Amino acid sequence: MRIFAAEKGIELEKVEVDLANGEQFGDEFRDVNPDCVVPVLELDDGTRITEVLAICQYLEERFPLPPLFGRSPEERAMVTMWNTKVEQQGLWAIMEAFRNSARGLSGHAIPGPGSFEQIPELAIRGRKRVELFLEKLDLNLDDREFLVGDIYTIADISAMVAIDFMKWIKISIPDHMANLQRWYESVSSRSGASA
Amino acid sequence: MRIFAAEKGIELEKVEVDLANGEQFGDEFRDVNPDCVVPVLELDDGTRITEVLAICQYLEERFPLPPLFGRSPEERAMVTMWNTKVEQQGLWAIMEAFRNSARGLSGHAIPGPGSFEQIPELAIRGRKRVELFLEKLDLNLDDREFLVGDIYTIADISAMVAIDFMKWIKISIPDHMANLQRWYESVSSRSGASA
Repeated sequence: MRIFAAEKGIELEKVEVDLANGEQFGDEFRDVNPDCVVPVLELDDGTRITEVLAICQYLEERFPLPPLFGRSPEERAMVTMWNTKVEQQGLWAIMEAFRNSARGLSGHAIPGPGSFEQIPELAIRGRKRVELFLEKLDLNLDDREFLVGDIYTIADISAMVAIDFMKWIKISIPDHMANLQRWYESVSSRSGASA
Repeated sequence: MRIFAAEKGIELEKVEVDLANGEQFGDEFRDVNPDCVVPVLELDDGTRITEVLAICQYLEERFPLPPLFGRSPEERAMVTMWNTKVEQQGLWAIMEAFRNSARGLSGHAIPGPGSFEQIPELAIRGRKRVELFLEKLDLNLDDREFLVGDIYTIADISAMVAIDFMKWIKISIPDHMANLQRWYESVSSRSGASA
């Protein structure tokens, strides 16, 4: 969401939540988002939008340029399709591997207020899923500059965030995946990427 | 997606895939969708859209009435927010409980072509997550006719599909959840619900 806003040149007033010290589970933040997760976008009228996709979609409507969800109904469908695949097959697989193995997350295998013990088999399964995910991305990028053709979109942002997150489970893009390497170099060198 | 199209009065040419006999894993369908899952929307130009959200978003753009994604940027954000919560906290929890316990799905704990063994602990965890999900829906419906206020949307469709799917894990809406009971009676009696 930070990268998304930066690509559009939107300045948002930021309030940091101290995740490392569990501020998201405190009464104050629980009142902001009962799901106890970030990010949350608060509008001037007090409306609070949670879930990254909902926030980005709202920003796209308010600040249409540059388009990050595609330029036509067909392209927008492809962007949502790829973004969904990246989230479900990539981000969550990585989260699954991380949350079920990181010592500090014992009892917090699922984000949010509920208590869920880690399942070691899930950490192993998550890593296997990440491999399949990387293969899929590499294959798709064989004849495309970005995930959905010639336009940089939210699907690329989600995928870059996923790849960056892989460092927490000590996986990096395999050397033989040249398409994915080339794409990652391109998207991570954009100025918005460091937002 | 069937219910979504029915609510809009769209007639789509249907091709059934014999999931029970594994047709989705055959070469022919793998060519249509390498992820080996339904539904897939094929456009006249041959473009294939997978992922329910992407398909419904495309249909919404092509057939705007009645609006099923909300009527304003703020409402659309709430719809996407709730639809995401329903998918992630509801549908997948139910799928998790089902796929990790159903005998016929041994080796198919995750939809798609990859082989993933069932993890019995996940089936238990899934059921616990479903309980939390139902509580969340019931609470949200306390002062709302539908999940996002006074308009029926894709978030209601996803939630209804989730609740209907609960029969596969033998969970039904608890009697004391009056809001959820009332809402379910309302949404399931719509003509589109039987599509």
